[in-house]
Amino acid sequence: MSTQRTSTRMPEKMSTSRTELDDLLAAQSVGHVGLVDGDTPVVLPTLVARRGDDLLIHGSTGSHWMRRLADGRPACVTVTEIGGIVVARSAFESSMIYRSAMIFGAFTVVGSDKQEALDVLTDRVIPGRADEVRPSTAKELAATLVLAMPIRTWTLRISDDWPDDPPSDVAGPSWAGQIRFGRTPATALPAPDLDARIVLPTSVHDLVD
Amino acid sequence: MSTQRTSTRMPEKMSTSRTELDDLLAAQSVGHVGLVDGDTPVVLPTLVARRGDDLLIHGSTGSHWMRRLADGRPACVTVTEIGGIVVARSAFESSMIYRSAMIFGAFTVVGSDKQEALDVLTDRVIPGRADEVRPSTAKELAATLVLAMPIRTWTLRISDDWPDDPPSDVAGPSWAGQIRFGRTPATALPAPDLDARIVLPTSVHDLVD
Repeated sequence: MSTQRTSTRMPEKMSTSRTELDDLLAAQSVGHVGLVDGDTPVVLPTLVARRGDDLLIHGSTGSHWMRRLADGRPACVTVTEIGGIVVARSAFESSMIYRSAMIFGAFTVVGSDKQEALDVLTDRVIPGRADEVRPSTAKELAATLVLAMPIRTWTLRISDDWPDDPPSDVAGPSWAGQIRFGRTPATALPAPDLDARIVLPTSVHDLVD
Repeated sequence: MSTQRTSTRMPEKMSTSRTELDDLLAAQSVGHVGLVDGDTPVVLPTLVARRGDDLLIHGSTGSHWMRRLADGRPACVTVTEIGGIVVARSAFESSMIYRSAMIFGAFTVVGSDKQEALDVLTDRVIPGRADEVRPSTAKELAATLVLAMPIRTWTLRISDDWPDDPPSDVAGPSWAGQIRFGRTPATALPAPDLDARIVLPTSVHDLVD
């Protein structure tokens, strides 16, 4: 069961749909993780992959912040997708088209099935890539910290509207509409030291196509 | 003078260049602001615009989190741009191409020159737009909270490399390279209630062109 945190601001933009949350997590793989260090908030960008009802993140065992998150302190994972701009007739009514989720909880260390969790993270960036590369070595696994947070307490805000200008502005000369961002193009470049006989793998081909 | 927070992780990726920080802030207008509420970290996506040595954000005076940030509590603004993917021969060596800044400090309320600060924020999203729209009304100004944080204590991490695979992997059959993301396309759509005689303004035209 998920617990909704309440928000009094613009309730028409709040969603309680887990399906809509999962849609956002499927569309956007980079999140920002907040933690508290002393009395200071720290916000880290990181790859976020959903596995069932968990959010997975990973990093080096040498990472100061990953080690702090691993102790189970309160954390907030925010995942945001910017879809465009609502261009209103006034600056005041202008805003962004976006989806953003805040997921609150605490991380635990992923132990026994760390390789499977890393495969989920690898495939989150390049679907199909985990099957194309060699398995992790024991040394690589030992150097990597994988953390999981249950998707239990969260808010989701979705904003995708036409401008809502007052009649006096609608009657005026100012343009209004939306700027919508399209799909970001991606290009594959072979490494300088790549053996020229090695062709582009299916996973990368599919992502850049 | 800026104070650098130290990081022991991958020092070759850390930058202390204010110019490189400003470049990132010029490229990416959406940041994630962290604050602490009770003992819980909260991470909010928001528009971030640099004005000289300050970061500006804005929101409704009715916003729970904006009001909390306005009390001067410690905050962290993280601005991240994802440029692509480093596709290594192993999952372990694979990573993202990115630039990310963490700026630590506290916000103060922008008072007397609030309209000018709002114009900076408006032009940050659509350059030139502030001059095309009517000035804010007194009621709109009163309903908007503009906050500024000095750019004084920050870290900047820049990662844009070819894969750094060990010789045993370079000799193997796996592909390696980069996936580079291009410029996200933007399309302008007129509002359904737009007077058909109103042409696309220069600001929007230039952004989508």
